[in-house]
Amino acid sequence: MTVPALNHALMFASIDGSVAAPAGFRAAGVACGIKKNGSLDLALIVSDRPASAAAVFTLNKAQAAPVTVSKARLSASGGRARVIAINSGCANACTGPEGHRTAEAMADAAARAAGAPSTDVLVASTGVIGVALDRDAVVGGIDQARAALARDGGSAAARAIMTTDPFPKEAAIETTTPSGRFRVGGIAKGSGMIEPLMATMLAVVTTDAAVPPPLLQRALAAVADVTFNAISVDGECSTNDCVFALANGASGVAITEAEFDVFVEALRRVCEPLAVGIVRGGEGATKLVTIEVTGARTDADAKRTARAIANSPLVKTAVHGADPNWGRLVAVAGRAGVDFNLDDARVQIGDVELFAGGRPYDDRAPEASAHLQGRDVVLRVDVGAGGSGRARMWTCDLSAEYVKINAEYRT
Amino acid sequence: MTVPALNHALMFASIDGSVAAPAGFRAAGVACGIKKNGSLDLALIVSDRPASAAAVFTLNKAQAAPVTVSKARLSASGGRARVIAINSGCANACTGPEGHRTAEAMADAAARAAGAPSTDVLVASTGVIGVALDRDAVVGGIDQARAALARDGGSAAARAIMTTDPFPKEAAIETTTPSGRFRVGGIAKGSGMIEPLMATMLAVVTTDAAVPPPLLQRALAAVADVTFNAISVDGECSTNDCVFALANGASGVAITEAEFDVFVEALRRVCEPLAVGIVRGGEGATKLVTIEVTGARTDADAKRTARAIANSPLVKTAVHGADPNWGRLVAVAGRAGVDFNLDDARVQIGDVELFAGGRPYDDRAPEASAHLQGRDVVLRVDVGAGGSGRARMWTCDLSAEYVKINAEYRT
Repeated sequence: MTVPALNHALMFASIDGSVAAPAGFRAAGVACGIKKNGSLDLALIVSDRPASAAAVFTLNKAQAAPVTVSKARLSASGGRARVIAINSGCANACTGPEGHRTAEAMADAAARAAGAPSTDVLVASTGVIGVALDRDAVVGGIDQARAALARDGGSAAARAIMTTDPFPKEAAIETTTPSGRFRVGGIAKGSGMIEPLMATMLAVVTTDAAVPPPLLQRALAAVADVTFNAISVDGECSTNDCVFALANGASGVAITEAEFDVFVEALRRVCEPLAVGIVRGGEGATKLVTIEVTGARTDADAKRTARAIANSPLVKTAVHGADPNWGRLVAVAGRAGVDFNLDDARVQIGDVELFAGGRPYDDRAPEASAHLQGRDVVLRVDVGAGGSGRARMWTCDLSAEYVKINAEYRT
Repeated sequence: MTVPALNHALMFASIDGSVAAPAGFRAAGVACGIKKNGSLDLALIVSDRPASAAAVFTLNKAQAAPVTVSKARLSASGGRARVIAINSGCANACTGPEGHRTAEAMADAAARAAGAPSTDVLVASTGVIGVALDRDAVVGGIDQARAALARDGGSAAARAIMTTDPFPKEAAIETTTPSGRFRVGGIAKGSGMIEPLMATMLAVVTTDAAVPPPLLQRALAAVADVTFNAISVDGECSTNDCVFALANGASGVAITEAEFDVFVEALRRVCEPLAVGIVRGGEGATKLVTIEVTGARTDADAKRTARAIANSPLVKTAVHGADPNWGRLVAVAGRAGVDFNLDDARVQIGDVELFAGGRPYDDRAPEASAHLQGRDVVLRVDVGAGGSGRARMWTCDLSAEYVKINAEYRT
């Protein structure tokens, strides 16, 4: 997706809050005992009126029970939902028929809590795979969260969906259009097992615009493609990834085909900081790395190269060590499986060109190393295939801390 | 490739030595100043008579100068070579026309040293990408190595091709056949940027059997497929990967189609320990991990799943931490892009089944954890697709030491 050029007067203003910033939404985050350390582990997000719903789900063939249940309910409701319940601390994945029944009970409890039809609900879980989700805890948590629902509850909800995330991810904006103002808000969580392949991360986006379900689905898919699907922490794709969007119309602004581009841009402006936040808070990450690939035959070729670079342990460790080892970028681009021409390829670290015309410029290494010392790193590779294909992805460095976190995750 | 069942009397006996163990070969490893710490950095392997040659090269599109030069000479000689020169400490990759001229000079010097036609030579380089290879040093090193050539020089050659390898990789066997005995010997090096995609590692295999070039090439490709192409340290494919094979006929045993299977098995028995040695000596590795995938639709599907598991940072860190986190194996198998059925999938760590019939057996986790404490780990995944496709791969764990080595490689 290319973000459309908008040719009419608009304003996108960042505002405080997240999923409960749009009118008609309330949220809560509570501790119901799924996480043994007593921290927040259940989020509830409720619209005070019926809302359109859209979702993108993991493409992993080992899908968790809440993914199966959410797909079924979204299909049964014809693209509507009023409530979303998410627990952290347990993924309810690979848990067999019993796990499926728990996900159904979780969805039923959430629908009841919102006074919504049993079809108008979405659920998600995140945490360890293969461990049974405590049904009493999660159902009790939903009741507890219902009592705590508040207009300023987005922050608690953002914290309640965290697992190894070092900080919560929240964003919201207000969009002014000729027909009025509407808001979009969102929360997301990471931070390991992150490489959503066309599906996405655990994230929730709400809006008080009125958006028909098919339009909402199209907008969410388009935005996910350039935000949540353009990030990678470790090249993994989880059993539980999903992004949910709810649109309840409380602002009085209706989105039709005419306003579609505006709505997409508003959605993108919420999803991009959430996606980038997931990477910045990636397990063990000390740097945010933006990868820009140009000169590819097609955008798809460029994205394939960018993804290979984003997942390369050698690139990620070099960035971690602030080593301007551009040769690793060439090596990865050369093995990415798409057209690559060594003689015409170019590599930049920050604004420093280190390889071009088939030859290195290693005298510029100190300048590149200085760029790599920062917390925000840009790597640019032109693959020299002579095309106009380009792509951007975000990743993080690979540190010893990542290894430590994941070697000791359950111990 | 499936290793053929051999139905005639044979004996494969491991023997001491490596590339100079077969009759008519001598080898040397010297220090010529490419590595700044004064350790061995140039290997020379020479046959005392003309020999057939075969090679498999990296599929990376950013090919190093020695790869280009070796391909051209092998083609010009019609599949013959008498001498192989390899330097470590500098990859001579991404070094432009000047690097190409240095690789040509290196090949010319090696041919002169062996008294061979200028076409009958193969060269390889390994080390940092994008740094100029010192032509005087490498040519001087070849002269120095020529003087040091010896029947017991294989060990020095194996050490001279090492970069971050913690130990040299050598293997040799003697094969007894009805028509006489022949030997096969080899050396290899790792240990980062290792995931040879149909091409292979830096390795040299010699034999004193007489093998026509087309047969030698076929045997090498088949064996590489189940050895060097079935390993991964970090999912990277280098600019310099190659495996060379020389067959000089000094044993008097001639390999024809009738003996092809015997020769392939002999070659495999040398290449497998070299390949496994590369993994065991992988950067930062503390464990050798054997991955066995079954129940796939095809062997190719099984290999794709095995490769995804071998390259998964979450699996590799869990193994490092001796965490029997089988859920990560399910998640990776589910995202490998091939048929996968969660209800029929099975996961074993060692001989301990932890997931089957859609449900976990976590009470067995302590037993699995005990297996993971060892230095040799086996992970078995049946993807439940109901087919007979199977594959085996070797990888290593991912440790903080890998990060340290690669964050500080050039500093």
